[in-house]
Amino acid sequence: MGELLVEFVCTDKNTGNLRAASYVGPFASGAPGIFIDQAARVGARTIFSGAVGDDAFGRVLSERLRGVGVSDTLIRTVKGIPTGSAFVAYNSDGSREFVFNIAHSAASSFPVAGEAIDALAAFDLAAFHISGSTLGDARMAAAALDICRALHGRGVGISFDPNIRKELLADPAYLDTVKALLAISTFVLPSAEDAAVLFPGESFEDFSQRLLAQGARYVVLKRGEEGCIGAGQGGESACFAAHPVEVVDPTGAGDCFCATFVARIVSGASFSDALRYANAAGALAVGKLGPMEGNSSLAEIEAFLAGRP
Amino acid sequence: MGELLVEFVCTDKNTGNLRAASYVGPFASGAPGIFIDQAARVGARTIFSGAVGDDAFGRVLSERLRGVGVSDTLIRTVKGIPTGSAFVAYNSDGSREFVFNIAHSAASSFPVAGEAIDALAAFDLAAFHISGSTLGDARMAAAALDICRALHGRGVGISFDPNIRKELLADPAYLDTVKALLAISTFVLPSAEDAAVLFPGESFEDFSQRLLAQGARYVVLKRGEEGCIGAGQGGESACFAAHPVEVVDPTGAGDCFCATFVARIVSGASFSDALRYANAAGALAVGKLGPMEGNSSLAEIEAFLAGRP
Repeated sequence: MGELLVEFVCTDKNTGNLRAASYVGPFASGAPGIFIDQAARVGARTIFSGAVGDDAFGRVLSERLRGVGVSDTLIRTVKGIPTGSAFVAYNSDGSREFVFNIAHSAASSFPVAGEAIDALAAFDLAAFHISGSTLGDARMAAAALDICRALHGRGVGISFDPNIRKELLADPAYLDTVKALLAISTFVLPSAEDAAVLFPGESFEDFSQRLLAQGARYVVLKRGEEGCIGAGQGGESACFAAHPVEVVDPTGAGDCFCATFVARIVSGASFSDALRYANAAGALAVGKLGPMEGNSSLAEIEAFLAGRP
Repeated sequence: MGELLVEFVCTDKNTGNLRAASYVGPFASGAPGIFIDQAARVGARTIFSGAVGDDAFGRVLSERLRGVGVSDTLIRTVKGIPTGSAFVAYNSDGSREFVFNIAHSAASSFPVAGEAIDALAAFDLAAFHISGSTLGDARMAAAALDICRALHGRGVGISFDPNIRKELLADPAYLDTVKALLAISTFVLPSAEDAAVLFPGESFEDFSQRLLAQGARYVVLKRGEEGCIGAGQGGESACFAAHPVEVVDPTGAGDCFCATFVARIVSGASFSDALRYANAAGALAVGKLGPMEGNSSLAEIEAFLAGRP
């Protein structure tokens, strides 16, 4: 569940979105959308709760998710409100400048409360994923937390990618929501940047064991170019180096990683295999321009892994 | 006064904004913004009432208008709301497909009522321009009509480009606002498409004489590739053939034409000269990609005209 956005990627460097330049888009995007697209691609039975505007950009999103088999019974089309959007401009040092329209777009109008909870529960979910990108607006954050608590109460495993936005940390309510979600999550899937904010000074060993003791089932740390490491409540542990690949567009790689890991675990794969597949899917994701254009099927992941140690 | 938008122009044909393609942007845009930029370029003392978001796109707009000398004392920067936007995709037959974000963006938050009226009146305006593009949202239309009536009451000449959006004609309130503005306009500046909707079956001679008898001072019909024709209350009349030029991007040419005509009249130019300059500015406008990138100074217009009969 969460925001559905179209994304425009600036193909000139260092513009800061401040001058006329070349862009490619509209790409289907939004961290939750990238996740569900990838989960469907690797074979999970999927449903998405979100909203788009009644415009061409909304069609880009709804047709994309429908095309990969995501159930759209909880994807609203909101009349008169524009589809959410994101514009990303890369700097030479790899940093990114964004212009977003989320809270004042259809992206924020996802089905909430009973309406969504009953339909999601009826879908017989094994896992429900939330990205921290959905928590930037107070109303969206409250709705997300409500639904996660209700589903957690019905035994659904919550999957949480903190996806911390540093500019929001000044708001104590934002961090409270992040912590409330951490406390009920089955899958805790931070990036190295997230871990530095949420678990300062703690090693992976330290914070993963603490989270597992508090009720998490799996903790995985995404370390970008340094690969990934994970631990499970049953004593599982694994780590993988990153595959050396050319980085065309890193946006979405973390969401793709999370989706592959959760979908593989839910399908019964071993912890180590789920992490190995997630690590490969992340490497495939950065090789294509567009936030979910580098998403991959099981067959593509397996072909990629077949040629590697 | 009106909506300030950034515009992204798709450089691939026939995409309908429905698939990832190449765009160029963000260009400063919005019909009222194009008008005021051109009015400033041809030497008018100008002020604009509008609003942008507190983001990179808002800076594109405010820096552009400030750069050409438009007074920005009535340009608001609205926190937390995105800057307005437009995406235009051309079809092979020259028709256009748009995705807009206006009513739910900062573009709709222009200063209204007493706040704007007093400041505009204090600027000692000779003319106040409204584009029909501002009337698509009921709240914006009501604010625009209020301000025009108040300024008209204080003796300011209202300049009105009907800029009819056919998809809005089903709403009787929209057409009522257009007609209310026509009734108080000093400058009536329709396109041929506008005239076909507003004055069906009437020749230019018929509807211009009727409008002049009802109080308009100038009526000018923009006929695109067929040039322009105009008439004034003092018996002025003139018509010009369109200059044969390569059309790179027609968006904004009508706004540029209107601005040149009104600014020249206000500066004391003859009716015929004002129309001749407007006709040339329109021709220059279509030759550049971007809605106001083809706007031109008096010197550029005169250089263009110097080489022509």
